[in-house]
Amino acid sequence: MLTLSTLAKISNAQLQGDPDCEIITIAPIAEAQQGAISFVSETRYQIHLKNTQASAIILSPQIATQFSGNKLLSDNPYLSYAQITAALFPPKPIAYQIHPSAIIHPSANIADTVYIGANVVIEAHCEIQAKSVIGANCYLGEACTIGMGSELKAQVSLYQNTKIGQECLIHSGAVLGADGFGFAPHKTGEWYKIPQIGQVILGDQVEVGANTCIDCAALGVTYIANGVKLDNLIQIAHNVKIGEHTAIAARTAIAGSVTIGKRCRIAGAVAIAGHLTITDDVIITGTTLVSHSLNKAGVYSSGLVVDENKKWRRNVARFKKLDDLYKKVIKLEKYLIKGAKT
Amino acid sequence: MLTLSTLAKISNAQLQGDPDCEIITIAPIAEAQQGAISFVSETRYQIHLKNTQASAIILSPQIATQFSGNKLLSDNPYLSYAQITAALFPPKPIAYQIHPSAIIHPSANIADTVYIGANVVIEAHCEIQAKSVIGANCYLGEACTIGMGSELKAQVSLYQNTKIGQECLIHSGAVLGADGFGFAPHKTGEWYKIPQIGQVILGDQVEVGANTCIDCAALGVTYIANGVKLDNLIQIAHNVKIGEHTAIAARTAIAGSVTIGKRCRIAGAVAIAGHLTITDDVIITGTTLVSHSLNKAGVYSSGLVVDENKKWRRNVARFKKLDDLYKKVIKLEKYLIKGAKT
Amino acid sequence: MLTLSTLAKISNAQLQGDPDCEIITIAPIAEAQQGAISFVSETRYQIHLKNTQASAIILSPQIATQFSGNKLLSDNPYLSYAQITAALFPPKPIAYQIHPSAIIHPSANIADTVYIGANVVIEAHCEIQAKSVIGANCYLGEACTIGMGSELKAQVSLYQNTKIGQECLIHSGAVLGADGFGFAPHKTGEWYKIPQIGQVILGDQVEVGANTCIDCAALGVTYIANGVKLDNLIQIAHNVKIGEHTAIAARTAIAGSVTIGKRCRIAGAVAIAGHLTITDDVIITGTTLVSHSLNKAGVYSSGLVVDENKKWRRNVARFKKLDDLYKKVIKLEKYLIKGAKT
Repeated sequence: MLTLSTLAKISNAQLQGDPDCEIITIAPIAEAQQGAISFVSETRYQIHLKNTQASAIILSPQIATQFSGNKLLSDNPYLSYAQITAALFPPKPIAYQIHPSAIIHPSANIADTVYIGANVVIEAHCEIQAKSVIGANCYLGEACTIGMGSELKAQVSLYQNTKIGQECLIHSGAVLGADGFGFAPHKTGEWYKIPQIGQVILGDQVEVGANTCIDCAALGVTYIANGVKLDNLIQIAHNVKIGEHTAIAARTAIAGSVTIGKRCRIAGAVAIAGHLTITDDVIITGTTLVSHSLNKAGVYSSGLVVDENKKWRRNVARFKKLDDLYKKVIKLEKYLIKGAKT
Repeated sequence: MLTLSTLAKISNAQLQGDPDCEIITIAPIAEAQQGAISFVSETRYQIHLKNTQASAIILSPQIATQFSGNKLLSDNPYLSYAQITAALFPPKPIAYQIHPSAIIHPSANIADTVYIGANVVIEAHCEIQAKSVIGANCYLGEACTIGMGSELKAQVSLYQNTKIGQECLIHSGAVLGADGFGFAPHKTGEWYKIPQIGQVILGDQVEVGANTCIDCAALGVTYIANGVKLDNLIQIAHNVKIGEHTAIAARTAIAGSVTIGKRCRIAGAVAIAGHLTITDDVIITGTTLVSHSLNKAGVYSSGLVVDENKKWRRNVARFKKLDDLYKKVIKLEKYLIKGAKT
Repeated sequence: MLTLSTLAKISNAQLQGDPDCEIITIAPIAEAQQGAISFVSETRYQIHLKNTQASAIILSPQIATQFSGNKLLSDNPYLSYAQITAALFPPKPIAYQIHPSAIIHPSANIADTVYIGANVVIEAHCEIQAKSVIGANCYLGEACTIGMGSELKAQVSLYQNTKIGQECLIHSGAVLGADGFGFAPHKTGEWYKIPQIGQVILGDQVEVGANTCIDCAALGVTYIANGVKLDNLIQIAHNVKIGEHTAIAARTAIAGSVTIGKRCRIAGAVAIAGHLTITDDVIITGTTLVSHSLNKAGVYSSGLVVDENKKWRRNVARFKKLDDLYKKVIKLEKYLIKGAKT
């Protein structure tokens, strides 16, 4: 339980109403009951302000008059909501310990204050820094480093030489450092494997989603800079570099040797072709195929949007003849201009 | 071995031919040998009816005359095939036991008749109900529940508070309950993590494919209703709700706070944008980008279909000028109408 | 360290320069220092030839005059690079051993010279042939076979009856043999599960990427032929057959019963609909939706490419009326021809 005045301080918000109002939880506005604080950051949820049972609401000053109860006015209600949630539900303190079933190579360098879960396997020359957490069943290949305060959830796999910075969070099923997809074609139609001898390096405060893959570099480093956030089921191929604070949503695939700038926002199911460069502050909408470099900040898109199947079938059939259609129109234009002249 | 008359009863089919014909296996029609039963549910396979070596065929009454051997006539040959396969290959009886290498917190509540495989880790306050199976190397975070008769294959990860109903089947590598992808932007370009304090709840008879991810809710519940079937490598983001008996094929990604109705059929590689609602009985074809809510039952699509690369390149180039082309045509129309009037 | 003359022999290249030049590593041309060999296989990297610090360069005879230092002339610089990397960085010799924590069923047939890592679980009737490596935390269901010289990285899951040929490499998180996605619809809207009683068989020299899924056949076999290379996060559904030396990039999904020929090259994020046939030597570009069989070798594509969001929105809106536009143009044509005739 925290008072509304405490929450106002934590979230840099301006309190209007009862400073001693007791808040025990946070809830979506449509479901909030007494004792809960809620928030409105999108217009579509304003409709609930009339009937909500919430004890207090976080909202922007622009719409403050729409709600007569206790409120916290914030220029960034979504950020205030995050800060208040963190205050109401602090992470459980970690009981640092090494589970007796963990199998740790004697050459590994393990700090005193770490949590290493059941059945964890840590190979030679690894370094696990203080206050880090290695979840159950994780596998760390030779010479991996886990920076201070980082956490691997259960069942994470790190190949040899993977370096993880400080305060990172790696979710279950993520695989870091697997071989890049590199094969040289033989004349016979066979493939000759190109040894993938590079590594993966993550900066600080990086988050990697469940079942996401980050391949090691063929040579050198696949590099994920400080503050990058990766969602689930993402593919990051060999030798990719991602700049600071870029966020990438689920199912996006980034091919080999792509360089992405800082503060980009890449939505879900995007595909980025190999060897391209994307500059800082680029926003890419969902399912876009990025087929050339993007050298200017801005919003980029491709793909088609849902339609009734019947209509879509007709339009798709026409698309296959779009070039012919274009030529037809040019011919008509010429014919008319010529006709007009005579 | 089962007789054809037994199989007719099991599958609600009408037998024509020898009721005592002995069936030992089931096989695709092109490969079936003596002793095998086969089935024809799609027109493209009818061609094999002439030469098949199968001892009996399941088929629909409409095409019964095309085959002169032993047959089972069924209004739903695909369902009959499924029922007969289940009868011929019943699941092996489970020898309930807890492997000595499993690491189970003493506060966990484990029914007597369960199978818990090697190296399983079960944290505090979990509940494993009767007749359930936890495959090798699974990880169950704190306070998870596995309902009666449910099975987790090897290497499944459940985060804390995940609830799985009865008779569910969760395939290897699936991750349930990982953090939703929620970050509030700071003015500095950094991201502030929004604590993901909700959970994942699955109803009964839900199937979850290999390496599929279902994230926990930011607040509240990510909910998968009874009878939902999810294929492999699917992304279900935080706070998604999926209605009863909806089936979703591989590689589909559903963004946060989407609500999907009952009995929908969503094909593979579909992407559904956040906060949308899809009503009951919607069918979505493969690779569709759903960018707005679908409020009427029906079939929906988007995307383009394969073409020769040479033609495609020309059409794609024209697409980038489609709006110009449209304006050209409107101008021509106006010019002609004006011309006609003078 | 190897001399340049040794590397020339290994890579079938023609040496120009100092045969005794000592090479200790390989590096990208922009980063290479003294002691490193580098290579130029793509035009875009030729610009670095002027200023590189590399001790030697692998390049094609066509551009040999652009570099005056030590060089290896090769008709396939990329292949030569792969061969030289393999020579400079040979894989560490494997210390064959079975970790004491591995849980191996007594009926399993394990060769003498194998490596079985920590916490591996091997069920009844498995066969592990000589010189194979099973990484930590892998799970092998009943009656799996691992061929001679094959390697499973950590955390791989094999369902029962999976057969892996010789010299295969399976990356972490891959799941082979999970149930195909097969359900027969009931009249009630429910799904009846079709027992998936087939298996997965891999030929020799197959590589399977991290978190890739290959489902078992409903009946019969899902078959991946010799020399096939699969990248990460790929979905191979039940009863798929893939021909020799075909390579498939990340995030591609192949639906049930598809047959793919030999030496195909399928880029990333492709989707192939069920029951199709793709002949030998087909190339499919990234994000293509393959909606019909491809019976002729060649290059195939679909999808749209990235554009500024503003332009894209206008073009996408027009696409929804493409059929109308087409009809408008046909009408204009007719009108003009008629007009011209009168």
